[in-house]
Amino acid sequence: MGRNKRIGFVPTMGDLHAGHLSLIRRSKKENDSTVVSIFVNPLQFNQKKDYQSYHRDTRADLSALRKEGVDMVFLPSDQELYPDRFQTTVNVEGLTQGLCGAFRPGHFRGVATVVLKLFQIVQPARAYFGQKDYQQLKVIEKMVHDLNLPIEIVACPTVREKDGLALSSRNRRLSISEHKRASSIYATLRSVALFAQSHPASAVTSLRQLFYEGLDLSKGDRVEYFEVVHPDTLTTLKKIQTPFLLAAAVWIGKTRLIDNLLVNRNSK
Amino acid sequence: MGRNKRIGFVPTMGDLHAGHLSLIRRSKKENDSTVVSIFVNPLQFNQKKDYQSYHRDTRADLSALRKEGVDMVFLPSDQELYPDRFQTTVNVEGLTQGLCGAFRPGHFRGVATVVLKLFQIVQPARAYFGQKDYQQLKVIEKMVHDLNLPIEIVACPTVREKDGLALSSRNRRLSISEHKRASSIYATLRSVALFAQSHPASAVTSLRQLFYEGLDLSKGDRVEYFEVVHPDTLTTLKKIQTPFLLAAAVWIGKTRLIDNLLVNRNSK
Repeated sequence: MGRNKRIGFVPTMGDLHAGHLSLIRRSKKENDSTVVSIFVNPLQFNQKKDYQSYHRDTRADLSALRKEGVDMVFLPSDQELYPDRFQTTVNVEGLTQGLCGAFRPGHFRGVATVVLKLFQIVQPARAYFGQKDYQQLKVIEKMVHDLNLPIEIVACPTVREKDGLALSSRNRRLSISEHKRASSIYATLRSVALFAQSHPASAVTSLRQLFYEGLDLSKGDRVEYFEVVHPDTLTTLKKIQTPFLLAAAVWIGKTRLIDNLLVNRNSK
Repeated sequence: MGRNKRIGFVPTMGDLHAGHLSLIRRSKKENDSTVVSIFVNPLQFNQKKDYQSYHRDTRADLSALRKEGVDMVFLPSDQELYPDRFQTTVNVEGLTQGLCGAFRPGHFRGVATVVLKLFQIVQPARAYFGQKDYQQLKVIEKMVHDLNLPIEIVACPTVREKDGLALSSRNRRLSISEHKRASSIYATLRSVALFAQSHPASAVTSLRQLFYEGLDLSKGDRVEYFEVVHPDTLTTLKKIQTPFLLAAAVWIGKTRLIDNLLVNRNSK
C-alpha cells in the first residue's frame, strides 16, 4: 500500500477489549484503511514465564476485528519478526528510566523496537495508542520525533469499566473481590488529584500517603509505585505544579495493574 | 517525494573524494533521482576534539555535487537532527563488538542512529555505502534487515589511489612520506591474502605476523588491529577458511586509517 492511501495502524498484543476497539474506531474514522497487528512481543517481557502465560485467543480477536470492519490484520510469527541473529534494538533513554521502566528493565526497549519494526512493515500515516499505558505512549511519541518517522501518533483516552477500573487484558485474571479492590486505584487517583488541585504546592510525599490510605487493599496486594511526574518529560515532581500526571502500578494479588490521571492547567 | 519516484541516497560527512563520487554515479544510474546528505555526525565521534577538527569544505563539496548533477543535497544543522532532549538511539549489538567497534565505543550506535534518521527523512528506495568501511556497511545492512526498513543497501567497491591506498577524507592529513608508508597497508593485505589462499588452514597468528612484517612503518606509526573475520558475522577466525575478510586499522603518525580485503570462495 502506498503513502497516498492513508493507513491507520493499531498495534496490539491481542486479547482485545473495548479499549482496543475504541482505537480501531477512531482509526477507521480518520484514515482510508485500518491495519491491526496482533503480536505478543517476546522482547518486551522481563519474565519468560509472563510471556508464555500471556493470554492468547486469536480466534476471538479475529472475530471481533471482522465485526469492526478492519481492512487488514497482521499476525506475524516470532520467527518472522525475530529471525536468528536478530540483534538491533531501539532505545529511548531518559523517558524509560522511571515509573514502569524502573521495575521492568528492557521492557520499553522491546516496545520501541517492535513498534519501529511494525511501522516499517505497515507504513501507516497514523498510529493509535491508549493513554492507559502513558509511559509507553510517551516513549513512542519520543521515538517518532527523535528518529524523524513520518507518522502521526494519536493518543486515545483510557476506556474504563463503570466502576472506573481501566480496561486491560489483565483484568480477566481478577476474581470478583480482586476486581472490586482494583477499582479503588482509579477512585483513589481521582481523590488525590482533587486534593492536589485544591492544595497547590502540596508535597508529593503527602499525596503518596493519601494514595496508600485511599486504596482498598488486602493482604498480598501491594503498591509498586506511586509517582507525580511532569506529563512530557516524566521527571518526578516533589511539589505539585500543573500540569502533572499521577501514575501508579499496583499488584492486586498476582496481577499487576497500572493507571494514571493527567491534570492540565485548566482541568478541574 | 513519494515512493513511486525511486530515490537513491548517498549519506556523507562531506569532504568528498572520488570514492563518494563513485557512489553518486552508481545511484544516478539506478534511480530516478539522487539525494546526497552532508552531515558531520557528532554522535559517532568518540572524541570531541576529533569531531571539532573534522575537515569541512561545504563550498567545494557543493561545487562537486553540482558537477555530478545530484538532484538534491541535504545539509541539516546539528540542532535539526539532534534537538534538545534528543534521547533515542539504535544499536546493532553483535556486529559492533569487534574490529573498529572495540576501539571506538558508541561509534556504530551513532552511525546507525543517524543513518536511520536520514533514511526516514529522505525515504530512499536504495542507499549506497562503500566497502572501505566494511563494518559500517554490515551494521547498516543488519539494521535494515532487523528493523524491516524497505530500503535496498548497495555495497560499492573501495576506490583506491594508484599505489593502492584506499581513498579516505583522512588521506589529506598525510605528508608525502606518510602517504608512502600508508600505501603499504593495502599492499600487505594483498600479500597476506595470497599467502593465506596458498596455505589453507593457516593460523591467524601467522598471518598477523606477516602483516606486521610486511608494513612499512616508522616510529610513531602503529597497528591498532589486524583481524581475520567471517565476512557476514564479523566473528574472528583462528584458522583460514574461505570466505574470509582481512581487516586492519593502522595509525600512520596521527592519522588512523582502515582497510580490508575480502576473499570469497572463488576469488584468487
